[in-house]
Amino acid sequence: MSHVQGLECVTCGRGYSCREVEYYCPVCGYEDGILDVKYDYAAVGREINPAIMGACDERSMWRYLPLLPVENPALIPRPQVGWTPLYPAPRLARELKVAECYIKDEGRNPTASFKDRASAVGVVKALEKGAARITCASTGNAASSLAGFAAAAGLPATIFVPRQAPEAKKAQLMIYGAQVLAVEGTYDQAWELCMQASAEFGWYNRNCAVNPYLIEGKKTVSFELVEQFASLTGRPCPDWVAVSVGDGCTVGGVWKGLREMHRLGFMPKVPKILGVQAAGCQPFVTAWREGGSLCPVAADTIADSIAVGHPRNFRKGLRAVTASAGAFVAVSDDEIAWSMVALARKAAVFGEPAGVAGVAGVKKAAEQGIIAAGETVAIIVTGNGLKDTRSAIRAAGSPVAIEPSLEAVRSVVAGEGAHG
Amino acid sequence: MSHVQGLECVTCGRGYSCREVEYYCPVCGYEDGILDVKYDYAAVGREINPAIMGACDERSMWRYLPLLPVENPALIPRPQVGWTPLYPAPRLARELKVAECYIKDEGRNPTASFKDRASAVGVVKALEKGAARITCASTGNAASSLAGFAAAAGLPATIFVPRQAPEAKKAQLMIYGAQVLAVEGTYDQAWELCMQASAEFGWYNRNCAVNPYLIEGKKTVSFELVEQFASLTGRPCPDWVAVSVGDGCTVGGVWKGLREMHRLGFMPKVPKILGVQAAGCQPFVTAWREGGSLCPVAADTIADSIAVGHPRNFRKGLRAVTASAGAFVAVSDDEIAWSMVALARKAAVFGEPAGVAGVAGVKKAAEQGIIAAGETVAIIVTGNGLKDTRSAIRAAGSPVAIEPSLEAVRSVVAGEGAHG
Repeated sequence: MSHVQGLECVTCGRGYSCREVEYYCPVCGYEDGILDVKYDYAAVGREINPAIMGACDERSMWRYLPLLPVENPALIPRPQVGWTPLYPAPRLARELKVAECYIKDEGRNPTASFKDRASAVGVVKALEKGAARITCASTGNAASSLAGFAAAAGLPATIFVPRQAPEAKKAQLMIYGAQVLAVEGTYDQAWELCMQASAEFGWYNRNCAVNPYLIEGKKTVSFELVEQFASLTGRPCPDWVAVSVGDGCTVGGVWKGLREMHRLGFMPKVPKILGVQAAGCQPFVTAWREGGSLCPVAADTIADSIAVGHPRNFRKGLRAVTASAGAFVAVSDDEIAWSMVALARKAAVFGEPAGVAGVAGVKKAAEQGIIAAGETVAIIVTGNGLKDTRSAIRAAGSPVAIEPSLEAVRSVVAGEGAHG
Repeated sequence: MSHVQGLECVTCGRGYSCREVEYYCPVCGYEDGILDVKYDYAAVGREINPAIMGACDERSMWRYLPLLPVENPALIPRPQVGWTPLYPAPRLARELKVAECYIKDEGRNPTASFKDRASAVGVVKALEKGAARITCASTGNAASSLAGFAAAAGLPATIFVPRQAPEAKKAQLMIYGAQVLAVEGTYDQAWELCMQASAEFGWYNRNCAVNPYLIEGKKTVSFELVEQFASLTGRPCPDWVAVSVGDGCTVGGVWKGLREMHRLGFMPKVPKILGVQAAGCQPFVTAWREGGSLCPVAADTIADSIAVGHPRNFRKGLRAVTASAGAFVAVSDDEIAWSMVALARKAAVFGEPAGVAGVAGVKKAAEQGIIAAGETVAIIVTGNGLKDTRSAIRAAGSPVAIEPSLEAVRSVVAGEGAHG
């Protein structure tokens, strides 16, 4: 069934069979020894190619099963994940000063974020292993996503979040019945703790920067983006794909997906990737500008999902942007708030702060000439704005309170007329 | 294009052409003169029938365009609405003590509620009319939905909500850029005010209990449910369809959709409808039990979306349940809270309080023998739990806070072991 050939260390290049190694390269260790899943592309190409995909009726990430590390498809949990909409956004494009702009709305996934693509694969792998419990550490979205998919599979989950994760994400965790440990500390501390606990208790580890299979789920966003873009425009791919960057796993997955679509003949080149970080937490931007090594920082931004001072998938993340001949940019919290409003009003998509950072990044990259006049951009909005409504209210203001009288309505309407 | 033949008053039976009358029957007035849209079913049946729908590639509510009152499909706004998943939920069925249970997850719509089906049609009709502004009054979901679709269409909107609407719904309204008037009063007061303002300022009226076209969007949930149920089970329809009831528009739309699917040959009978209200606001239950007339009440329930003391579509709502040979039940806030948890943990769907009232209703109806042993139930979950996370936290509890040490994890795990 699966066309997986094995695992390869991104640092030393050593190859392993999937039975031999579970998570990371034993020689390089978990900080450096992240593994990449290798496929038999000749076999894959007979099942996924531009000539036959148009006739494929499956509208979920499982459309791409031959390119996913699943041994037993009967274990795939029920929530319908992926095949999120790609919208043309001409009014937003004018605001951002780019020629054409498309929005991939990942907030439409089952738990309302991109992370569902990874959790779906993680839960299948845990079930294939016969694991009794699954665990992860997360700024919020991977956590709530894992909780949802673990509930769907009837698999117990223990989840580590920083205590200041937004209320909505904690509500999701609790309602799905996960065991939730709110760590009095940063995401980085929650992550370390989860790694130790996973080792001590033998829980299946869903952390995307350690478990090589998770990024395989994430890459499906690019498969869909390429197929949907071609179907909307008749052209093979946008010039740029923009996405927010925290741990580096998401951008790594986006790049792997784009490369594979190129390899399978869906497009003649790989689009450039614009990696976007919050100005208050930009270790990738710094490393990319200053020659490549990672200096962990303290995070300070409203974009909680990318508030990762010590990115755990630094190598894959940096490689994605550099190998695509793309760029990194950093955007301020004010620019992120502006983007929440612009995206909702001009493209009718409500994203959370980290989710819309890509929008802010495109505006900045266009201003700086990184995105050239005439270039086309697709932006991946990674999470739904309902996950952090406080930031939305801060960005957009509160309603006008009125007495229940027509007189009160008249005076608001008259006031609008006078001002506007 | 459209197969609409005209409008018919649900009270006096008078017929009107669509040009003649905009909202309600001028003879019966707006409280009683709600209109029903009539179609040329012979013409519709050539485009929508069981023999050809399997080959239809459109996966949204617009799949059923020949049964919708749209004159100009070019005006359909972009957000992808409808074709939400229908999940088999065997673990939930065991909890509810019914033979088989299916969940239609309407929280997967663009603004995360069922109301998007109505707003999509409302915005098209407003654009067809050349309206300069659209308005509605809402407990929250119709409002946030209209705000999203108005943003998508670039159409200004003025929206009346009761001031105590949940934060998340107000955040959606503001981010999409609607003019929002938070009325110091109940939904009923907001509704009256909206009616007056619509008349005074000439704004297009999206209120579902007055505008005959909105319910046409809502009925599409039943079309999908029937097609998806047949595709999952090979059988034509469930015995029951359960849905929460506020104004009566939603249940009216569900019934109309089921009747039309029956008429078009998709199933040999119309399923029974279980209308579910909150015990703290049950005017339909009372009227149904006590012989038919409406006594408005004061609302007191956590299920804000169905906290409607004076249902504005009382006739269509009551007729839906009685004509289907169904039943009404009322459920307590505690039963609703229990259902939020059960639905999330057993079926991986996170619903808001009003959204899951149908789940609580099915449990109660099974206990009372209204749903018989062996009968199959589909439940429409009308809104996403992310719209009211405070209720979720109240229902499911808060995370365990721990110090960032493995020792702290060990003691939580040991504690779990001791208790569980």
